[in-house]
This record gives sequence, structure tokens and C-alpha cells, in this order.
Amino acid sequence: MAIVRIMRAEQFGLKREVEYGSPEQNEVVRTIIADVRNEGDAALLRYTAKLDRAELTAAELRVTQAEIDAAYDQVDAAFLTAIREAAVNIRSFHEKQKRNSWMDLQPDGTLLGQILRPLKRVGVYVPGGKAAYPSSVLMNVIPAQVAGVPEIVMVTPPSTGGRDGIDPGILVAAAESGVKEMYRVGGAQAIAALAHGTETIAPVDKICGPGNIYIALAKREVFGAVDIDSIAGPSEIIVLADEFADPAYIAADLLSQAEHDEMASSILVTPSEQLASAVAAEVERQLATLPRQAIARASIDSYGAVLMVDSLEAGIDVVNKLAPEHLEVLTADPMRLLGLIENAGAIFLGPYSSEPVGDYFAGPNHIIPTNGTARFSSPVNVDDFLKKSSLIYYSKEALLANGDKIMTLARQEGLEAHARAIQIRLEREGR
Amino acid sequence: MAIVRIMRAEQFGLKREVEYGSPEQNEVVRTIIADVRNEGDAALLRYTAKLDRAELTAAELRVTQAEIDAAYDQVDAAFLTAIREAAVNIRSFHEKQKRNSWMDLQPDGTLLGQILRPLKRVGVYVPGGKAAYPSSVLMNVIPAQVAGVPEIVMVTPPSTGGRDGIDPGILVAAAESGVKEMYRVGGAQAIAALAHGTETIAPVDKICGPGNIYIALAKREVFGAVDIDSIAGPSEIIVLADEFADPAYIAADLLSQAEHDEMASSILVTPSEQLASAVAAEVERQLATLPRQAIARASIDSYGAVLMVDSLEAGIDVVNKLAPEHLEVLTADPMRLLGLIENAGAIFLGPYSSEPVGDYFAGPNHIIPTNGTARFSSPVNVDDFLKKSSLIYYSKEALLANGDKIMTLARQEGLEAHARAIQIRLEREGR
Repeated sequence: MAIVRIMRAEQFGLKREVEYGSPEQNEVVRTIIADVRNEGDAALLRYTAKLDRAELTAAELRVTQAEIDAAYDQVDAAFLTAIREAAVNIRSFHEKQKRNSWMDLQPDGTLLGQILRPLKRVGVYVPGGKAAYPSSVLMNVIPAQVAGVPEIVMVTPPSTGGRDGIDPGILVAAAESGVKEMYRVGGAQAIAALAHGTETIAPVDKICGPGNIYIALAKREVFGAVDIDSIAGPSEIIVLADEFADPAYIAADLLSQAEHDEMASSILVTPSEQLASAVAAEVERQLATLPRQAIARASIDSYGAVLMVDSLEAGIDVVNKLAPEHLEVLTADPMRLLGLIENAGAIFLGPYSSEPVGDYFAGPNHIIPTNGTARFSSPVNVDDFLKKSSLIYYSKEALLANGDKIMTLARQEGLEAHARAIQIRLEREGR
Repeated sequence: MAIVRIMRAEQFGLKREVEYGSPEQNEVVRTIIADVRNEGDAALLRYTAKLDRAELTAAELRVTQAEIDAAYDQVDAAFLTAIREAAVNIRSFHEKQKRNSWMDLQPDGTLLGQILRPLKRVGVYVPGGKAAYPSSVLMNVIPAQVAGVPEIVMVTPPSTGGRDGIDPGILVAAAESGVKEMYRVGGAQAIAALAHGTETIAPVDKICGPGNIYIALAKREVFGAVDIDSIAGPSEIIVLADEFADPAYIAADLLSQAEHDEMASSILVTPSEQLASAVAAEVERQLATLPRQAIARASIDSYGAVLMVDSLEAGIDVVNKLAPEHLEVLTADPMRLLGLIENAGAIFLGPYSSEPVGDYFAGPNHIIPTNGTARFSSPVNVDDFLKKSSLIYYSKEALLANGDKIMTLARQEGLEAHARAIQIRLEREGR
């Protein structure tokens, strides 16, 4: 029987149990954070030995320039060229997001403004898990750098994906995106070190980057002491297409999402029954030769679907309801639908805007809200690394003109001392 | 003995135990949220009867136009004039924060962009506690409205500060700032209704507004299902001043912060011993006649201080370390120091920029990061009510030119299906 479910959109409900951690996992994380906070490097090294099986001294935590040079020798030229060009594109897209501090000068001499400043120090976590993702290093680091963050530090487990040592692609990506400070430390102990600092690692103002459940729980635990990015859920794509789309393109794009992990969700929404069955068949065919076939199959099987709708407009309603991380629009005239799309983290229009174009190269960020949170949140961007301060220089004239109104509002709220702070100034001015 | 502590800055550490709720309180909140989520209005009304002692029907939850009209009759003309002018100023300051969606058209036909859209529906919580704060209604609602949020709903307990019914100032402030939908419901049950919806109250995308510990815990609990604003801690002010400042102004400003609550913190940082003792004496003197004397005294006693530094530059270091919610600079030449201030939520320059000017009237937002979080977060602003989507329209030319690099990066990460989504398109184009 076919692996791809074809059903009416009305019958579909995307239900994914997202793991928020057991009480035991939370307890483990709290203990690690408390220990690192109290003991510093000692606890950091102890947990690194215990959990990452790496016996290190404090002096060995920091990645050396020699290692970074060695990493360059290990990656091939094509990768280096590609990642350098990707970095240029990502930087140029994010440069366009920059804003300046501004001020508003009023006739009475009053000056109001908003001061934008970069965060001072940001920590980027790079997971060591199954696969190494140099692209995610670029997507986290470059926006912070464009914002003007002077200190960007990367932490990553002592060894990546079974290999002995950190993946050279990761080191090269970090160096290429401008990271000067890298430490071989991972897990909740790394998050604790970034949040509270140790003798070797100075504390940061914000922690970003993906990771397993322990990283997610640790980030949530230290939030408040530092800022954190959003906790990412499994990846998602919706392809909205009509009969003019190429079923093979759609199947390939659905599978590129599905190969990420078993909980990834790949959905086609279409009014065309012919396209629906053609895509279902294509998915079967292309699956057969995929290296990560087992993962992709499990994902399609559990969270994949083709949803039938009466029209593209009805399809847009489904999109807005699910608020997908990625949306591809493969229709005869995709621009016509753009204005109707309310909720989608990243929107890919037309047959050549395959999701990997955005994952790796075009310039927009590939760290995008999941699990329907595109309703209210945004892909990683420069604003995430800026903070704002309000500026008020009130003139004597303005205070004399408005003091009474300010006192009225303060007294309405029963805050007499607020009123008197104004009154004493008015009295000094002979009012 | 004097109430105001005078000490060297080095000896000072601002230690405030911020209440994050007991396991029991968390359990209560989780139960309320689960009940409202499962039973809707029934649970909402049951908890309103139990916790707010108000027996209501579902039909009575919504505040009527008649009540709003009645509120206008109950507030006096001076208040109405003042709040209308404040609303104009707040709107005009936040209008200057607005941004447009943008796109970047490239020579090969590629189009990249960032689409900014307002959230669709926002809920504003207005507490019923001791005091009623119409000004906070403006500060929460107007930025959302300027962002373009089409549906802004206010919830507030059935009675405010002991009075029978909602404070008329609150209703007028909401009406003046453009709220069309108001419900008489408070507590964790109100947060649950906003997050998950009931038969009477439709769910929102974001919840803002201050509240007691139960509100804070409920907001944290529903975060993820909806967005929330930051959890505000006790209010703070640092006044940085030299010998040219007026001690009476400074004392009045410190006390206007101290009267908020016992945990508020009011600190003077100065190199002038003469100013230090003059301010300490003035605080004593002015305290004596304050209606909220007990609260202000407790706050000054526990969290107030005068910190001696060797220079104004050294004072700035203290400011940047504490990252205060409010900073007043009362020196001979305050502008000279502005560039050195890294961490402060709102900056008030000069003798006439008393904090209440910003609390009520000037235009910048008075909801500002507390507890040192100004290091990485910002006053409430228009961006808090906008979400961004990335837009990618990649041209055939761009894909032909860059496809190989994209495949290289995908294969480096072991994601073959990503590479094939590009490859199949290149093959179709005869590559």
C-alpha cells in the first residue's frame, strides 16, 4: 500500500507530541547547571569527562588556531568556495535588516529617541549529534555579527558525530563567519558555562543554537539570567501546488524535509487529484534510492500527507491555520497568492525556489519558527541581537506646559510621590 | 539613624529574591489552565465566582458599551484631557518605530525579501490589585495598534481595588486607546481563556500586561501556545548625578520609584559626598509627608542606597553593571555621558526629565526591562507586535549558476535528498 496518505484537508490535524522533557531530565539539567555555577571549570571538566568521554584540562577547552588551520586543510576546495559564497549572501541579506538609533527633536527643545545597541557577548551552541551542520553556524553567527555584537563565542562538543575531534566543516564555518573564540564543550554544562561563566569561559548575554532535549531544557532553565533563542521543534514544509507543478520537484522537496528526522512533517496541499497521485507515486520512487531512506520513510509515514482542497484560496486557509516553518508555492502564478499568506516562516515562490536554496545559500536565515509559532514569531534576524533604550530629554518649557497633566495622571493612579516629583520642579520655577 | 545607606559602590550588590512561585502555586495555575482549556466558559465562570467572588453568566463577561459610556461620566475632565494627550504622544513616538516589508531584486531575476505583518489578535491583561493603572493600558495597547494588530482584547478582573466594578479610568483608557473588546475576567483563568479560547473569548496570538505571581506563572505556562511579553520584576531607578544637581529633585525622583512597592529599588550614584548627604536628608524630609510612606520607607530601607564613586565615568560602569530599568542623568553636561551608557532600559537626561514624565506622558513606553535584563531586552515597542517572514523567489538563472554549490553544502552535511532536490531541477534544464 502507498506510504503517502491522500485525504481531505478537513480531516487532517497535525498532531506532534513535542518532547518537553521528563522530571528526571529536568532534574539532571538543574543539577549540572547548579554544579557548573558553583564549581566553574572543575564541574565543567568533570561533566565533559563523564558525558562526552573527553578528559580535558581547563587549558585544553579552547580550540587553538593550529586546530582551525588544520581544519582548513581537511575540507575540500569546493566546500570552502561554496561556504564563502553562502556567507557573503547571508551577510548581504541580513545587512538590509539593520536599523539606526533615531531621535525626534521637538520645537520646545524636547528630544525623544530610541537607541539601538548590539548585545555585548553572544554564545552559539553547535550540536555534536549525528550530523554536523556548518550552515547552521553561519545562520546563527552572521546575524549577530551584522548587528555588531563584538564578542561571539562558539561551544561544541569535543567530538562530532563519532569522529575524534570537532568536525572540520564546523570549525571552518565558524572561522569564515568570524568567530574568534571557540570551546570544545557541549551539553547542559556548556549552556551553564555560557550563562553563568567559569574561570575559562566568560558569561554571555544571549545563547542561541539548536541541540537535543538537554540543551533545550538547559536553555529554558537559564532564561532570565541570559536571553535565549526559541526552542526549535521538528522541521516542517508545506508545498501548495496546482496542476501546473512538476510532481518530481514536489516529491524531491518533500523528501528533503523528511530526511531531517522521523518527526519532520512534509505536506502537499493541492486542488489537483492528478497532481496528488503523481506526487505520491514520485515520493515512493525517489524514496527507494535515498541514503537516509529509513528516516524519510518514517517521517512521511507518520507526519506526511497530501491534503485535497477545493481551490488554491482554500489551500491558503490551510497554510494560515498550520503556520508552517517552510512554505513552497508551486503554482502557475505564485505572486498572486503572496498577499493572502498570513502565517509562514519562510515563503519559497516558483519552481526554482527549492527549500535547500534557502537552507544553504540564498541569504535569508534557515532558523525559522516551527510548530505553528510562525503565527507570532520570526526567522532569526538582526533584531534578535539588538536591544533598544528609550531616550528622554525633556525641556523646561515642556515640563511647564505639561506638568499639570502629568500630575493629574499620577494622582489618578494614587501615586502622589510621582506627582510631587513634578510639582517640586514647577515650584522651583515659580509655579 | 538615617534610612538611606551611603556606601562605596564596590560594597554594593543588588540582591533581590524575585518570586517565581512555589510548587503549590504552579500546581494551582496548571489546574486552572487545564480546566478552562477543557471546559471553556463553564470553568472560566466557576473560577471567577470562586476567586473573584463574582457570579456571572457567559453573556455578562463582556463589558457593554453602556458601561463604557458610564465610565466616561465618572472620570473628571482633567483626567480625560490628560490621558487623551498622553495617548497622542505615545502613538506619535511609536509610529516612528514602524517599518515596511522590503525586497531585494537581483540582476538575475531573483527576488529576496522580508515581509513584516502584524499579529492578528493580542490580549492585554490589566490587573485589578491595589491600584488601577490606566497608563499601563495605553502603554500596552497603543504599540500593538500602531503595529496594525486588528484585534486587541482587554481582560481585567470584575472589580478593581475593592471598588464594585471595573475602575472607570481603566475603561476610559482602553476605549481611548482603541480597544473594542473587553471582558471582566482576571487571574490565571483569564490567561487560560486568552491562550486557548472559550465559547465567549476567542484565543489570541500574544498575551501582554502585568499581574501578580499567578498571572506570571500562567503566562509562562501558556508560552509556546501563544507568545507572551516579558515577566516584569520590581521597578528600579538609578540616578547618576554630580554636585550641580538639585538634591530635592533627586530625592523626589527616588521616592516616586520607592512608592511603587516594597521591593522597588532607588539608587543614587555620585562622586559628590556633599550631594550624597544632602539627598539622604531630603529623602527623610520628603518621606515624612508621603501618603504611601510605609511602602516607600520599606523600599528605601531594603533596596535603596547612595553609591559613592570616584568619577562620573566610574558611575557609568556601575550603571552598565546593574543595567537599570530607569536611569536619570542629572549632571552639568548629561549628553557627554550618553555614548558611554550601554545598559539601561530608559534614559532620562537633565533636571526636567523626571521619571514620571516618561511614566505618563512624553511618549516612550513605560514597560521596560527590569532585574538587569536591559542587558539584552528592550522596552515594549512596535516590533513586539510584528512577525517577519522570509521571501525567496529564486530565478532559473540563479539556480543554474549556484546549484552545484548548494549540492556541495548539502552533501557535506550528509543530506543527499537536499542535494537531489536541486539536481533534479538542473537535470530538467539539461545539466
